[in-house]
Amino acid sequence: MTYCVGLLVQDGLVLLADTRTNAGFDNIATFSKLRTVEAGGRALGLMSAGNLALTQSVVARLEEGLPRDGRPPETLLTVPNLHAAARLVGEAIRAVHQEHAESLAAQNVAFEMSFLLGGQIGRDPPRLFQIYSAGNFIESTPDTPFLQIGEHKYGKPILDRVGAWDTPLSAAVKLTLISMDSTLRSNLSVGLPADVAVIRRDSLRIDLARRIEEEDPYLLDLRASWSASIRRAYEALPDPPWLAPG
Amino acid sequence: MTYCVGLLVQDGLVLLADTRTNAGFDNIATFSKLRTVEAGGRALGLMSAGNLALTQSVVARLEEGLPRDGRPPETLLTVPNLHAAARLVGEAIRAVHQEHAESLAAQNVAFEMSFLLGGQIGRDPPRLFQIYSAGNFIESTPDTPFLQIGEHKYGKPILDRVGAWDTPLSAAVKLTLISMDSTLRSNLSVGLPADVAVIRRDSLRIDLARRIEEEDPYLLDLRASWSASIRRAYEALPDPPWLAPG
Repeated sequence: MTYCVGLLVQDGLVLLADTRTNAGFDNIATFSKLRTVEAGGRALGLMSAGNLALTQSVVARLEEGLPRDGRPPETLLTVPNLHAAARLVGEAIRAVHQEHAESLAAQNVAFEMSFLLGGQIGRDPPRLFQIYSAGNFIESTPDTPFLQIGEHKYGKPILDRVGAWDTPLSAAVKLTLISMDSTLRSNLSVGLPADVAVIRRDSLRIDLARRIEEEDPYLLDLRASWSASIRRAYEALPDPPWLAPG
Repeated sequence: MTYCVGLLVQDGLVLLADTRTNAGFDNIATFSKLRTVEAGGRALGLMSAGNLALTQSVVARLEEGLPRDGRPPETLLTVPNLHAAARLVGEAIRAVHQEHAESLAAQNVAFEMSFLLGGQIGRDPPRLFQIYSAGNFIESTPDTPFLQIGEHKYGKPILDRVGAWDTPLSAAVKLTLISMDSTLRSNLSVGLPADVAVIRRDSLRIDLARRIEEEDPYLLDLRASWSASIRRAYEALPDPPWLAPG
């Protein structure tokens, strides 16, 4: 399984992905699900969930470039804007579908994957997209500034409660980590280390790219403090008045 | 969809169920998913999730009683202990399966349902069971004192964090309501009102049976206070030290 979350706020973009992959419960490995691109006035991050063979094929095609008649292949380094970048990821997914879908169907393997793509190209504002296995996609908006792929449910309540367009960028990193922590606790197939990338609005570079290990002091402190805060908050709430003392 | 949670603690049992059912997004109705039985030195609660036609059939069979050669039919009022009660629910599920599974399969409707059954019969300690659509079941233990059916993921993190065997009974009601609140916020197909039942250890009666409406003052206060506490806890946590000021 996988958990990836992207949060696009006023000041920029946070991308956070776990690194656990599993083929059954007895075959677990660490693969990065976050790739970043930084060059020529653009900074992008791409995160993937789903069948690893398929997502790796999509990424390989994006790196090679999608063929363009009489022109050099199109890559995330050459697309003119983020919307075109999302379309390019969709095109790569469809190319992989064309190559593999029939054989997979014959083996009863679902053609399942999804991507989060975010970043900024030139003077366009930063954008964040979620691309589905049919190659179609949706975009985050200030009303719903986060998108999630993979095991998204455990980490969604905290995003629903406090995730907002005006969240400062550092707090946005903290928020995605809290969301990841809830997921890690409830689903063993999501696991550390995690990869985080931050792209500040208009910096046009990867302002932070960090692998967060299990023993990371900030993460350890965040997890312990959050757990203690939740427990205190729960204890401080009044009990219901309905039940007569036993 | 549905969300039901049972929490069996040292002092007794809490059962909480939402009441929303839906056949598609455009056909939503209110059905109680919690039934209680209180008679002759026993107090039981049964909650259901899944296909409503199927769960209603199971409940009807339990009320009629499962046939016993040469003896009166067996019901939740006659079984000798909680384990036998769980087996009886499983038997009712299998009887419904025998009647409907073939026709459902022909229409591509999954035979899907699950139940939570808890309570106390006589001098046996209180017990809590989760019964699957094959009629098999599991039982809660002090290590994992809660069981959930339906849309269980959004409400699980808080149970994982603070749900414990030594939780006082009133706090256990509060905890299940917080868990329900997270689910209500994130999945529109789970909806109020909610039904709650509490069975205190050794009381052998339903100590609380209450429908909690949208405008219930305690629930309104709990939701607002919990939201505010979570926000304060989140804001009080330090931001990560990794990101240089922008």
